[in-house]
Amino acid sequence: MSKASEKVTFNINKRTDFSEWYNTIVRQAELIDDRYNIKGLIVYRPYAMKMIGKIYDFFEERLESSGHEPVLLPLLIPEENLQKEAEHVGFKAETFWVTLGGDEQLAKKYALRPTSETAFYYMYSIWIRSISDLPVKLYQSVAVYRHETKATKPLIRGREFLWIEAHDVFATKEGAIEQVKEDERTMKEVLQDLLRIPVLFIRRPQWDKFKGAVDTFAADTIMPDGVTLQIASTHYLGQNFSKVFEITFDDKDGTHRHVEQTCFGPGISRILAAVISVHGDDSGLILPMSIAPIQIMIVPIPGEDVTDYARILKRTMLDMNYRAEVDEAEETPGSKFYRWEFLGVPIRMEIGPREASSSKVTIFDRLTKRKREIDLEDLRQFLKGFEEEQSKTLFQRAKTNGDEFLARASSVTDAKGKMSEGKRVFIVPFCSIDMDGETCGAVVEKELGLKVLGEELGREKPEQGQKCFACGKEARHLVYLAESY
Amino acid sequence: MSKASEKVTFNINKRTDFSEWYNTIVRQAELIDDRYNIKGLIVYRPYAMKMIGKIYDFFEERLESSGHEPVLLPLLIPEENLQKEAEHVGFKAETFWVTLGGDEQLAKKYALRPTSETAFYYMYSIWIRSISDLPVKLYQSVAVYRHETKATKPLIRGREFLWIEAHDVFATKEGAIEQVKEDERTMKEVLQDLLRIPVLFIRRPQWDKFKGAVDTFAADTIMPDGVTLQIASTHYLGQNFSKVFEITFDDKDGTHRHVEQTCFGPGISRILAAVISVHGDDSGLILPMSIAPIQIMIVPIPGEDVTDYARILKRTMLDMNYRAEVDEAEETPGSKFYRWEFLGVPIRMEIGPREASSSKVTIFDRLTKRKREIDLEDLRQFLKGFEEEQSKTLFQRAKTNGDEFLARASSVTDAKGKMSEGKRVFIVPFCSIDMDGETCGAVVEKELGLKVLGEELGREKPEQGQKCFACGKEARHLVYLAESY
Repeated sequence: MSKASEKVTFNINKRTDFSEWYNTIVRQAELIDDRYNIKGLIVYRPYAMKMIGKIYDFFEERLESSGHEPVLLPLLIPEENLQKEAEHVGFKAETFWVTLGGDEQLAKKYALRPTSETAFYYMYSIWIRSISDLPVKLYQSVAVYRHETKATKPLIRGREFLWIEAHDVFATKEGAIEQVKEDERTMKEVLQDLLRIPVLFIRRPQWDKFKGAVDTFAADTIMPDGVTLQIASTHYLGQNFSKVFEITFDDKDGTHRHVEQTCFGPGISRILAAVISVHGDDSGLILPMSIAPIQIMIVPIPGEDVTDYARILKRTMLDMNYRAEVDEAEETPGSKFYRWEFLGVPIRMEIGPREASSSKVTIFDRLTKRKREIDLEDLRQFLKGFEEEQSKTLFQRAKTNGDEFLARASSVTDAKGKMSEGKRVFIVPFCSIDMDGETCGAVVEKELGLKVLGEELGREKPEQGQKCFACGKEARHLVYLAESY
Repeated sequence: MSKASEKVTFNINKRTDFSEWYNTIVRQAELIDDRYNIKGLIVYRPYAMKMIGKIYDFFEERLESSGHEPVLLPLLIPEENLQKEAEHVGFKAETFWVTLGGDEQLAKKYALRPTSETAFYYMYSIWIRSISDLPVKLYQSVAVYRHETKATKPLIRGREFLWIEAHDVFATKEGAIEQVKEDERTMKEVLQDLLRIPVLFIRRPQWDKFKGAVDTFAADTIMPDGVTLQIASTHYLGQNFSKVFEITFDDKDGTHRHVEQTCFGPGISRILAAVISVHGDDSGLILPMSIAPIQIMIVPIPGEDVTDYARILKRTMLDMNYRAEVDEAEETPGSKFYRWEFLGVPIRMEIGPREASSSKVTIFDRLTKRKREIDLEDLRQFLKGFEEEQSKTLFQRAKTNGDEFLARASSVTDAKGKMSEGKRVFIVPFCSIDMDGETCGAVVEKELGLKVLGEELGREKPEQGQKCFACGKEARHLVYLAESY
C-alpha cells in the first residue's frame, strides 16, 4: 500500500489512452512490479494478491460444491509426457526447460508446466481402473509458465501467470458435455454475477481451439480499447488424451473403454486485469464490493471526539462483516481522499466533529462520486442497498461500454469501412467454424487483422438464406470477429 | 478418497517399524502418490491437500493479524542474485536450473527458487527508501525446489515442497529481534496449540545455521523413531543481506542506514508429515479435530428410518459448524468402520434403527476407541467436551512418546553406551554453540552419528562448574544431540 511518502497523481483518459491508463495504473496502484531482473516475470504485490485470493476463493468454493477436490501435481513435466498427444506437443515450443540439477546435466529435460494435462493424465492412467472410480473431478490452483516471445503486458500476457485447472473424467460423452455446461455456469456466476465483468461465451473455431481438444469454449470480455480478452475457457477433450495416455476403465457390462474428459481453466491473473480494466475510470480503480480488499475507508477530519468515533465506527463495520479500515496517517484529509479514490475503495466515510456530535457519517461513493449524509442507525440498511446498487450499475456501465464496439458487417469491405472509424467487434454471418471455414478465417485475419472468435453459445443462428460475409456461401453460424489480446 | 473397490488393510507397529508404517500410510491413505515419472516429485492428493489448506490458513491468519501482507515473487531467480551473499551461494549446488526457453538457449540460467531471499531482497532494494517505508512484512505461500541428492521421503525430504516464507525488514536490530520472538509465538500457537505437535524451540549452533543468517531458531519435533524433524524455522539475518543487496533507508535524523532483517519459514509439507507421524497408531491415522477434513463420519446401519435420520443428523452437524459426512456407499458397515478408522476421522457416529427410534447416536472415538451412546439433545455439549478432551490427550500422548527418547549423558562414552540400547535424544552440557564449539560438534557427529541441534530457548543454562560432555572445558550451554531427518 502506498506510504505517505509517495504522492499519487493520476488522471488519464481511459477511453482514448487505454494502454497508457492500464500500464500506469497497475504500477502506480502497486498491484504489480515489473522491475524484477528477469523480463516478463512480475511481482504480484499485496493489493493484487488480496484480490487474487478472493477470485481463487470464488472459483474454489464453486468447484468444491460441485464435487471437485484439490490436488497438487508436480511443476515439472517430462518431455515425453508433453510429446504424447500430437497437437498438444505444440506447447513444447513455448516452455521453459530445466536441464541442470546443481552442476549436473539431468538425463532428461523437464518442462515447467505450461498447463498440466500431461501430468494429470499420466496419473489418471494409474488411478482409474473401473467404473466405480468415475467420475474423477480434481483441480489445482497454481502458476503456469510460458516462454512468451510476444510483448508481455502485466497480468494479461506474461511468463508466469496464475490460474486454476480442473481436470474431469467421465465414463460417457454425456457426462463430459454436462460438465462443460457446469463450467459455463461457474464462469457466469463468478465473472458476471460476482465480479460484474460482462462476458461472451463463445465456441472457438476448430482452427483456434486448445491444442488437443475436440472443442473449446471460452469466456471473452471486451476491453475498453475494443480488444477482446479471453479470461477463462473449458474444453471438451473427448478421448483424445485418454487414447494416448491409455486411461481406460472396466464398465459395468465388463467392456474395457477409454474415458471421456474435460478441462477447465479460469485465468486468475487475467480476470484481475479485466476487473481493473472494465470498471476503472479516469481517476483510478473502481472495485466491486465483492473483491475490494478494503470496502470502507474511514477518514477522520481532525476535531473533537473524531478519533474515537472513527474507531468505534470501524468496529461496527467489522461486526457487520465489512472490510473496513481507518486512515489515521498524519496527512491532510484531501490527500487521503485522493489516494483511496485512486485505489478504488468503494465507500469512503468522512468523519468530522459535526458527524461525531450528531451520530452521522458522510458517505462518498467512489463509483458515482456522490456524497450523502447517513444517520448511524440507518447505516446497515444503506450499505445493503449500496452493495446492490453498485453491483447493478457496475455491470450496466461495463456492458454499455463494451457493447459500443459491437457492429454488424455485410462484407469484408463493409467491415473495413467501419474499422476506419475505430476498433470494432463484429457479429457477422459466417460459413463454418469447422475446418472448412478456415479459409474465410484467414481472409478475416489478412484483410481485417481480426480473429474469428467463434460462435456465441445460446445465440440465435443466422436466418435462412443468409450468406457468409466473406465467401458468400451459405452461413451456418453467426460469429464474432475481434482483435484479441 | 478410497473407493469401495479398493480394500484397505493396515496393521503395522508404529513403534518398532516406523519407517514402514510411515511409507505405507502416506500411500495407502492416499495422501500422496510417488508413482509420477520424475523421481523425488510427488503428487499431493485431496486428503493431504485439504489438511495442507488448513495448515496454510492457520499460519496466514496469524501472519496477517500481525501485520504481514501476501505477495508473490517470481519462481525463477537469476544466478547473479543467488551469488551475492557469500554463504547463501551454497544453495546453488542444490538448485534446479532453467536454461532453455522453447528451443532457444537462454542468455542466463535461472534457478527454481530453493528459497526466495535473493528475489525478495532484490525488490526490497528498490522499494525501501525511507524510515516511513518500514517495517516491511511480506509473506508468500509457495512450493520450493531442491535438487536433493539424498534419499527422498514423501513430505519429509523431496524435490518440491510446500512452505510459507515471510521476509521482514526493520530499521533497528531491536525490531528484528522482536520479530523472531513473534515468529516463535506463531510457531507455538499453530504447531502446539492447534496441531498438538510437541516441539523443541532451539537455537542452532553457528556451524549449522541457515546460509546467510546471523542466527537460526528452529522448531524440532521428535518423531516416533527418535529422529528429530525440523518443521519450521526463523532466522535473524542482521545486515548480512541488506549490505550485499544495498537495502538502505534514510533515518529520521538524516543518516543513511542498512536495514535489519528476519525471515520465517514454516515447512507445510513437513508439518503434515509430523501430524501424521506423532498422532497415528498401529491401525492408521489419528487426526486432530482442528485439521481433520472430515471430523464426523456418520455410518448408517441398514434399517427402518435410518437413511433419513442419518441425513438429518449430518445437517445438524453442519449447522453446528462441524465437517460431517454420511457414508451411504453400498458396503458393509464393518468395511466402513475400518476405512474411516484407518483414515483417522476423529468421530464415527453409528446410526441404526435403535438409535433412530430413540433419538440417540452411538459414538466411536478414534483416539481412545471407546464407544458411547449419547442423547441427541446432549450432542452439542458432548462434542464440545470431546474436542477439548481429544486435544489434551493427543498432546500428552505425543509428548510422552517423544520424551521417552530423552536422555542425559555425562560423556561421549556414556552416550555411546545408552545408544546401544536404542535411539536417544540427549541433553548434555556443551562448551559452545559458537564457532569455537565446532570441534566438539564434529566429535558428536563422528563418534555418535548425531548432530548438535542446539540450545533450547528459555531453558536453564548449565550449572556453575559443569563441563562440556565432549571436551571437558567449561559448559556454556545445555544442548540437544539427535539424529535428524
